[in-house]
Amino acid sequence: MKILILNGPNLNFLGKREIGIYGKRDYEELKIFLKKSAKNFDLEIEIYQSNHEGYLIDKIQEEYSKFDGFIINPGALTHYSIALYDAIKSVNKPFVEVHLSNIHSREEFRKNSITAGACIGQISGFGFNSYKLGLIALKDYIIEL
Amino acid sequence: MKILILNGPNLNFLGKREIGIYGKRDYEELKIFLKKSAKNFDLEIEIYQSNHEGYLIDKIQEEYSKFDGFIINPGALTHYSIALYDAIKSVNKPFVEVHLSNIHSREEFRKNSITAGACIGQISGFGFNSYKLGLIALKDYIIEL
Amino acid sequence: MKILILNGPNLNFLGKREIGIYGKRDYEELKIFLKKSAKNFDLEIEIYQSNHEGYLIDKIQEEYSKFDGFIINPGALTHYSIALYDAIKSVNKPFVEVHLSNIHSREEFRKNSITAGACIGQISGFGFNSYKLGLIALKDYIIEL
Amino acid sequence: MKILILNGPNLNFLGKREIGIYGKRDYEELKIFLKKSAKNFDLEIEIYQSNHEGYLIDKIQEEYSKFDGFIINPGALTHYSIALYDAIKSVNKPFVEVHLSNIHSREEFRKNSITAGACIGQISGFGFNSYKLGLIALKDYIIEL
Amino acid sequence: MKILILNGPNLNFLGKREIGIYGKRDYEELKIFLKKSAKNFDLEIEIYQSNHEGYLIDKIQEEYSKFDGFIINPGALTHYSIALYDAIKSVNKPFVEVHLSNIHSREEFRKNSITAGACIGQISGFGFNSYKLGLIALKDYIIEL
Amino acid sequence: MKILILNGPNLNFLGKREIGIYGKRDYEELKIFLKKSAKNFDLEIEIYQSNHEGYLIDKIQEEYSKFDGFIINPGALTHYSIALYDAIKSVNKPFVEVHLSNIHSREEFRKNSITAGACIGQISGFGFNSYKLGLIALKDYIIEL
Amino acid sequence: MKILILNGPNLNFLGKREIGIYGKRDYEELKIFLKKSAKNFDLEIEIYQSNHEGYLIDKIQEEYSKFDGFIINPGALTHYSIALYDAIKSVNKPFVEVHLSNIHSREEFRKNSITAGACIGQISGFGFNSYKLGLIALKDYIIEL
Amino acid sequence: MKILILNGPNLNFLGKREIGIYGKRDYEELKIFLKKSAKNFDLEIEIYQSNHEGYLIDKIQEEYSKFDGFIINPGALTHYSIALYDAIKSVNKPFVEVHLSNIHSREEFRKNSITAGACIGQISGFGFNSYKLGLIALKDYIIEL
Amino acid sequence: MKILILNGPNLNFLGKREIGIYGKRDYEELKIFLKKSAKNFDLEIEIYQSNHEGYLIDKIQEEYSKFDGFIINPGALTHYSIALYDAIKSVNKPFVEVHLSNIHSREEFRKNSITAGACIGQISGFGFNSYKLGLIALKDYIIEL
Amino acid sequence: MKILILNGPNLNFLGKREIGIYGKRDYEELKIFLKKSAKNFDLEIEIYQSNHEGYLIDKIQEEYSKFDGFIINPGALTHYSIALYDAIKSVNKPFVEVHLSNIHSREEFRKNSITAGACIGQISGFGFNSYKLGLIALKDYIIEL
Amino acid sequence: MKILILNGPNLNFLGKREIGIYGKRDYEELKIFLKKSAKNFDLEIEIYQSNHEGYLIDKIQEEYSKFDGFIINPGALTHYSIALYDAIKSVNKPFVEVHLSNIHSREEFRKNSITAGACIGQISGFGFNSYKLGLIALKDYIIEL
Amino acid sequence: MKILILNGPNLNFLGKREIGIYGKRDYEELKIFLKKSAKNFDLEIEIYQSNHEGYLIDKIQEEYSKFDGFIINPGALTHYSIALYDAIKSVNKPFVEVHLSNIHSREEFRKNSITAGACIGQISGFGFNSYKLGLIALKDYIIEL
Repeated sequence: MKILILNGPNLNFLGKREIGIYGKRDYEELKIFLKKSAKNFDLEIEIYQSNHEGYLIDKIQEEYSKFDGFIINPGALTHYSIALYDAIKSVNKPFVEVHLSNIHSREEFRKNSITAGACIGQISGFGFNSYKLGLIALKDYIIEL
Repeated sequence: MKILILNGPNLNFLGKREIGIYGKRDYEELKIFLKKSAKNFDLEIEIYQSNHEGYLIDKIQEEYSKFDGFIINPGALTHYSIALYDAIKSVNKPFVEVHLSNIHSREEFRKNSITAGACIGQISGFGFNSYKLGLIALKDYIIEL
Repeated sequence: MKILILNGPNLNFLGKREIGIYGKRDYEELKIFLKKSAKNFDLEIEIYQSNHEGYLIDKIQEEYSKFDGFIINPGALTHYSIALYDAIKSVNKPFVEVHLSNIHSREEFRKNSITAGACIGQISGFGFNSYKLGLIALKDYIIEL
Repeated sequence: MKILILNGPNLNFLGKREIGIYGKRDYEELKIFLKKSAKNFDLEIEIYQSNHEGYLIDKIQEEYSKFDGFIINPGALTHYSIALYDAIKSVNKPFVEVHLSNIHSREEFRKNSITAGACIGQISGFGFNSYKLGLIALKDYIIEL
Repeated sequence: MKILILNGPNLNFLGKREIGIYGKRDYEELKIFLKKSAKNFDLEIEIYQSNHEGYLIDKIQEEYSKFDGFIINPGALTHYSIALYDAIKSVNKPFVEVHLSNIHSREEFRKNSITAGACIGQISGFGFNSYKLGLIALKDYIIEL
Repeated sequence: MKILILNGPNLNFLGKREIGIYGKRDYEELKIFLKKSAKNFDLEIEIYQSNHEGYLIDKIQEEYSKFDGFIINPGALTHYSIALYDAIKSVNKPFVEVHLSNIHSREEFRKNSITAGACIGQISGFGFNSYKLGLIALKDYIIEL
Repeated sequence: MKILILNGPNLNFLGKREIGIYGKRDYEELKIFLKKSAKNFDLEIEIYQSNHEGYLIDKIQEEYSKFDGFIINPGALTHYSIALYDAIKSVNKPFVEVHLSNIHSREEFRKNSITAGACIGQISGFGFNSYKLGLIALKDYIIEL
Repeated sequence: MKILILNGPNLNFLGKREIGIYGKRDYEELKIFLKKSAKNFDLEIEIYQSNHEGYLIDKIQEEYSKFDGFIINPGALTHYSIALYDAIKSVNKPFVEVHLSNIHSREEFRKNSITAGACIGQISGFGFNSYKLGLIALKDYIIEL
Repeated sequence: MKILILNGPNLNFLGKREIGIYGKRDYEELKIFLKKSAKNFDLEIEIYQSNHEGYLIDKIQEEYSKFDGFIINPGALTHYSIALYDAIKSVNKPFVEVHLSNIHSREEFRKNSITAGACIGQISGFGFNSYKLGLIALKDYIIEL
Repeated sequence: MKILILNGPNLNFLGKREIGIYGKRDYEELKIFLKKSAKNFDLEIEIYQSNHEGYLIDKIQEEYSKFDGFIINPGALTHYSIALYDAIKSVNKPFVEVHLSNIHSREEFRKNSITAGACIGQISGFGFNSYKLGLIALKDYIIEL
Repeated sequence: MKILILNGPNLNFLGKREIGIYGKRDYEELKIFLKKSAKNFDLEIEIYQSNHEGYLIDKIQEEYSKFDGFIINPGALTHYSIALYDAIKSVNKPFVEVHLSNIHSREEFRKNSITAGACIGQISGFGFNSYKLGLIALKDYIIEL
Repeated sequence: MKILILNGPNLNFLGKREIGIYGKRDYEELKIFLKKSAKNFDLEIEIYQSNHEGYLIDKIQEEYSKFDGFIINPGALTHYSIALYDAIKSVNKPFVEVHLSNIHSREEFRKNSITAGACIGQISGFGFNSYKLGLIALKDYIIEL
């Protein structure tokens, strides 16, 4: 089972960025964490990060057929990228939206998600574990198909 | 580690209620699923359901000190119960909000969550698995404390 | 043909409550009126009133299978109880929403109905007769099924 | 007792128009239904339909003194015709607003009624029976005066 | 100098309609008042009333070249008729909008005027005198051209 | 192939009305243009204009069966006539909405279209050519059926 | 009959201020115009201008008993001064609100009037003549009392 | 003089709940404080707390005739319970709404009060003293009747 | 203990102004009432009234150091004076906002308070007693400091 | 005459993406269709697609001088890209906005177009034909210049 | 070159007022800073502060002809004073709006500026330096004229 | 002291783009102006422009450690790029937002700035000088650190 993990703008800046909200561990640690988790759950993963709405869409379009499922943390694009929403809808594959922080207890404009409506579900607020939970959710979902 | 699982209005009607959205499995099956999950994760759980905002608050207040964490699916109360939000905030314990369906792809009024702001995070859209993911998230969270 | 008549918060205070709007006849008179109407239309009725959103939902869930149809006057819950809306949707039975006063000629916040969207129709503004009309509507509806 | 039944835009297209919502029976059948109902309730009726806001107002003004009460289904004008609202208010006669479909379970813009605020009440969602219920309501109301 | 006085829906029902707001004098008295006023100000007038948005527009289009100016009381159309606004803009003639009642001290929805934006000005709140003031305003305006 | 071209309020005033926006050519020229276009595309057309929402609806209802498709420029009714929207939906025929000016670069209130939702598409901003494009679109659409 | 004419902020800058909207004639000319008008209508007037919401209220309170009626052009205070609205309501005297420009054809925020709701009526759009019309309206109103 | 003091959801959790906002003193201390205050002002009081909207309404209905006045702190229900508003209106007795914290300097959603509109007044922001002030206000009000 | 009592626009017009809402007693009576109350509570007071936002701010700035606390009834400024809000925040002294009428049961625009957010609390609806309660609240607050 | 055809995010996924809305024909077929159309109308075209707002702007800036006109289908960027709007305005060339689906009969958020305000017009709802109509419109527009 | 520096409500309270936001330096220090800056840039300045919207407008009107340009920090009036906006527009002189704090990172209601629309530009967030930058901007602007 | 100057979409089109708003000088002239200014203020600068939200974020992330401060003119991204806002917040360096035109006197949608909330301040309306002022502000700010 192959999973593509997509990270949007500024996620590569973990550990530097608003540590009070996103924690001290950096993006390298996230990648290690993801690989370990994937191994634990017997999943093959690829990780991709971009600050570009366009490259995230390109990636989805170019490689969607190689993967069984997707974890996506669209970062700030969550709140306004209808193009990303459309891209997710375009490919008939399961996506799980994840967020490190709890988007429901932050600024007003972070409460709504445009992209989650195109995913099977959303997991928000558990730091790195949001991704781990996403992998579990996705694996279960794909098996049940 | 003891976890209280709180289910709000109409969740006891699973399997009868809008099957297209909530699935065919009924509330008894959910309870069995929860017990099995708990056992797998080595957690002691209690399950409580009420159609009353008031009894959910009473339950939280009366038993919060017996539990290490809480899973809450507030059902429709998610969208308007400030009293439940206050109750969650009142007790200094971790709550995880879960939803069977993906609240981001349904009616407009189901998209916002009043109660999630008082929880550590929210998991939405994975059917019974939303609870399982919630248990994992909660256990990890409590261990990290 | 068995009909359950559900009355929400403060309806038991008819005759005491804002007489200019709800009229002088009290809740006992309403019950007598309902029984007489039911008899005229050859319907068996049960009447239930509660000031609790929760008990109204409990009642619907516990007894829905005993009845062929429901008249509901949710009182103030009309305007915010998504939980009641969900409860009505949960059971596949016909509900008719009734109001004593014309909700369209009162305060702005009384004009919209959350619950009516889950019912087959709404009757508003005819005092006690709103219930009578509801019984007729329900009977016709059930016969046509 | 004489009743004028006013039907607004597109009601003459019953049976042709969105059958899933308005039913298969056509306008001629509605007229027959209305006449039979009127006879049953010992009411003299006249039926008038127009696609013109202006002719509906003209009709009300020209003939209001000949009638004891009015049934009005303003069709789409329900949602924006302040002029019709004013016309109803101009004449001191009882109006009952009726709708074939349940306006509370359709498009957002059909949920509010401008015109109902000038009527004694509103009946919505019972197909042809909405008119029958309206006649009963009106008769009762006029007798009670 | 020739002036066309246009009255919209329900103005012909003066004296019958909400006397507390519009006064006891009826439409015939308004016409006499207008003729007397016109005579006093040495103006030739024609008076036209319709309950139809369409006929008001037709009238403007068909006869605009015969008149030097227009008094318009669009009645309820004031608040939603973009078509009437467009008609006024279509003809390069001065229009004065008048209202019997003070639209600023009534229902919320009567406070804004769509049509006044196409007129040279608006006079509101002086009963029959609103028209008299309109005639004076119009005469002065035309002379100044 | 027979096409009915419907023009709403004030379109007969082309050439007189806000020339900066609608151009100098008048309604007679539009009719000539339409006939020439129709001839070019081998279409039989009828042209109908009214300032009355009601007559536009009447026309649609009375003659819809004679035509294969419709071009409609509802003028200002575009922005508020739910009745016209309903009329278009009532008849199962293809409508194309056209506008002379680009409604997206004008006043805020001209940006939304109520009626376009009932049509197969909308063409806006090309002056007389909007109609020509509408005829081409309609012909192609009907042929593809 | 004594009338107090109150002018709010920036009206003393007539002739300097946005001449395209307010005209070239300056405040001295307005005062001469007002005196001449008053003389023509056999009215005694006093004119008061202030850029201070507070002094306008002081003036109303201190001198209201000396006057039979008031013309008020609150300038920009029209759109936000609830205090001025309250002051007008405090004294039981007739006020007429006047505006030089047509507030309905300018910026969005100039369309609503807070203060007009406390006056007997509003006259807007006729330049200096708005005051003249206001004097006529006020005189007629006071005589009719 | 007998006063019923009603406390809504989560008020029994004083001293545990968000101490920064509500203070360290717990509910038992509030009860002692209330009894002492009552004694000082020569008032007989009963104190009732519930987390249930329904029980608060039941209490009002069942015991309203035994009391001369009411202090109510509806907690979170302040902001959405139209049913409680209706219950207060139902009984013709004076209610004073009190809040421990200043609702005007907290979250946006705590600023409006649904229930205060049915009370004679509101006191907000003085901790336990809000109740004391409420008792004084109520006593004065009842004496003045 | 020295208290400054600040009254905003139109409060000096008590007894003249909307007696149904504000009562018959005039401003002189309020001053006597305040002095008596102050004496009873052993407080030294100064009373200041102005119709000017500016003078109220000047007063706060010039004399804040002479006083231990402040009662403020900002009148209509309550609803829009951010400058007054800033002034209250500027000086580190306790302010209590008071209102004679219950602002929660009046016009929509009187429900929100800009200024209360800068005060320790708000008391609204008890006529002259609102001030008395304010003095008690303030005294208690200052003692507790 | 040279035309640049710009396609925004996800348009390259035609035939894969929501076939119920966008049809079965894929992007290659669209390109063939466009070339054939261009040939029919004697136009030279270039086709460019990007999922990147930035590259669409780059393309416009770099090549605008080589083309006489532009067809643009901004995809989801239609609804939020002010940057694209600015880019279109930056170059003084005619743009026609086209959409495959009728944006007026889909989700609420697809109804408004940011970018259309910078174009000469918009064509929406005719599938591939929207482009063909766009080419005709553009050619006519350029010839008329 | 002569510049008038206008400071609105509460700016004279610098150093006392919310030091975390506005800094510790007081108004005297600001005046010294401004004089030194003016000297450096070879400008003659006058500084005026008032807590009164009215006096700020008076000052602009009375002295505008003596100055070549204006720096204005309207304080809280920034957000609601249409009268000040009008005053700035009245005189054809360049105004630069300055703010000590960054109004874009504070309360929601401080984000919009009514007055900036009448100025040539706005500088916000640089403490005392906002004024210095304003002087530079103004000098450059005037020279370029 | 090293400063990075970031220019967003379409700024490279200065001199071509809406000259009435942005002036005639082109982007090359801006670069020369910036270099000259930098030299005058003894600052080392680098200038970077992109039409891509993504590249602007990349640039900030990749080079933030090389610079002491940043000038950013996000162009249209100002109004919707939460991703850019997040990027600015991610790096703990001072940013100054600048705009050539006065965003407060243009279209409604240009009045709010998403990105300014993450900067130390904003300068808007002074053409090229906005950048010069930004450099001065930044230099002063960095020195004061």
